Amino acid sequence: MSLFVGIDIGGTKVLAGEVAADGSVVRTAVRSTPGRRVQAALVEAALTEAVEEVADGRVVSAVGLAAAGFVDTTRTRVLFAPHLPWRGDDVVARLKMAWGVPVIMDNDANCTALAEKAYGAAADASSAVIVNLGTGIGGAILLGGELWRGAGGMAGEFGHQQVVPGGLPCQCGRHGCWEQYCSGNALVRHARASLGKSAVLSRACGGDAAALTGAMVTEAASQGDAVSLSAFAEVGGWLGVGLANLVASFDPALLVIGGGVSAAGRLLLDPARAALAQSLVGAEDRVVPPVVPAALGPESGLIGAAWLARTIVG
Amino acid sequence: MSLFVGIDIGGTKVLAGEVAADGSVVRTAVRSTPGRRVQAALVEAALTEAVEEVADGRVVSAVGLAAAGFVDTTRTRVLFAPHLPWRGDDVVARLKMAWGVPVIMDNDANCTALAEKAYGAAADASSAVIVNLGTGIGGAILLGGELWRGAGGMAGEFGHQQVVPGGLPCQCGRHGCWEQYCSGNALVRHARASLGKSAVLSRACGGDAAALTGAMVTEAASQGDAVSLSAFAEVGGWLGVGLANLVASFDPALLVIGGGVSAAGRLLLDPARAALAQSLVGAEDRVVPPVVPAALGPESGLIGAAWLARTIVG
Repeated sequence: MSLFVGIDIGGTKVLAGEVAADGSVVRTAVRSTPGRRVQAALVEAALTEAVEEVADGRVVSAVGLAAAGFVDTTRTRVLFAPHLPWRGDDVVARLKMAWGVPVIMDNDANCTALAEKAYGAAADASSAVIVNLGTGIGGAILLGGELWRGAGGMAGEFGHQQVVPGGLPCQCGRHGCWEQYCSGNALVRHARASLGKSAVLSRACGGDAAALTGAMVTEAASQGDAVSLSAFAEVGGWLGVGLANLVASFDPALLVIGGGVSAAGRLLLDPARAALAQSLVGAEDRVVPPVVPAALGPESGLIGAAWLARTIVG
Repeated sequence: MSLFVGIDIGGTKVLAGEVAADGSVVRTAVRSTPGRRVQAALVEAALTEAVEEVADGRVVSAVGLAAAGFVDTTRTRVLFAPHLPWRGDDVVARLKMAWGVPVIMDNDANCTALAEKAYGAAADASSAVIVNLGTGIGGAILLGGELWRGAGGMAGEFGHQQVVPGGLPCQCGRHGCWEQYCSGNALVRHARASLGKSAVLSRACGGDAAALTGAMVTEAASQGDAVSLSAFAEVGGWLGVGLANLVASFDPALLVIGGGVSAAGRLLLDPARAALAQSLVGAEDRVVPPVVPAALGPESGLIGAAWLARTIVG
């Protein structure tokens, strides 16, 4: 029996999973991500542990890695990642050697896109743009069923399109980037600014604005909390504006919204759809692409990584 | 001998040309574009005259049309064009019938891209984004040597990405579109606003701000006129910001700038390159794609159309 493992290497945790040919996740293992300022060997030890737990003594056929960072065009190196210590060394070669199995890697948003194409929301789409709303924005582009990775492997960095000249400062060192207005961080920022007006939110975070999370805002919004709903309307509106820019450029058949913030469903997507229809050039004379939630949830990254692993074994 | 004709159907003129296999333009014919509020037959008569003048009694092998408008996915109809009367009727079938030769059509920016790929600035690029700066902005996308036309044939409408929330009104009915800040119109608007400070420009337009054209601003800038140079710095800066957004999304190997405004060369491209390097996410850790002028000038549309015509004849 062949055994394919996908690993989503995120900023806070490493999530490994055995994935069947139909995309279903058979079993998983979790480890904490050791962080950015540690030796690479520590991260790799966490990966090894996670794979061994999933394998449970069985022979692994191949492993796919979904890395939250800039993966180079050869897809063997992470050039830069905000939460990982890897900086340009050949991680794939090292892990191949250590594990004695084929290993393949891609950017996490690309893995999500591959999973949604193979088993999820983008299965029937001739083309799609995937926008992952987490702390920031991750993105990927499927054209004619294939990922467009870009000339340097850096396509899909939608979060850093400038949408407000001289706007909010961004971690990237620039100002007015889309992810400052449309992300989990933006959602929480809006809710914090009106925390005093929401008894529900104040209770949820124990009156400590710094303790407020996106999940709390989502929960409060689903209960009808006005401050939280207004935060989603704001973030959803910016989602629609940014999507309109992407549609003007790519004209994809489908828009797929994933990431933690998308768990809010229509609270986020309804204002986004309205803003898209309003902001998109020629919206009255064209088919405005549907905006749909990602189908595979938080496991989409590892599912796409395992799908990639299947492609490298004959 | 085979004879391939390309026709660029622009807002003000119809430019037809015989194009050799090496992309060189052998002879041309010009007619005025009758306008938007006329019968389609008038436009088609102008096309017929232009083709007949180019053919000069010889048998035409095929004709390619480069249309300034939204061309549908079957590339036989113009859905909408600001300066043409066509509205969804099968123009290609009608002209095929009338002329008795194979006819093919595409959007003018796509034709420019195909020409630059076949014979010009994008010949060696694995991927490229083409931005045509005229009255507004036309755009096209070459990925792996092929045009990406979009799911609905409307990809490349870069000019309508929103870059300023609640910004200048646009002909598209929205606000803050890129082409309001980065185009021939924007250039002239900046120069007009400071017309009183420029003796050169005032002379050029006879003191009539309404008579000022982009060509006058380009000429004055090349002579060192401060107002005109400042207009180019402003438009070039916005060019760089918008290009940075496109590179963040597409990560192309090359950026090609065409259209009338690009005739200004470095006056436009130098500030654009500086703004691109400043605005592009991760610019310090990646290869920033070169920004180069289109190589084929005002005939690029008809050259690309004729190249397309060659593809449909066995």
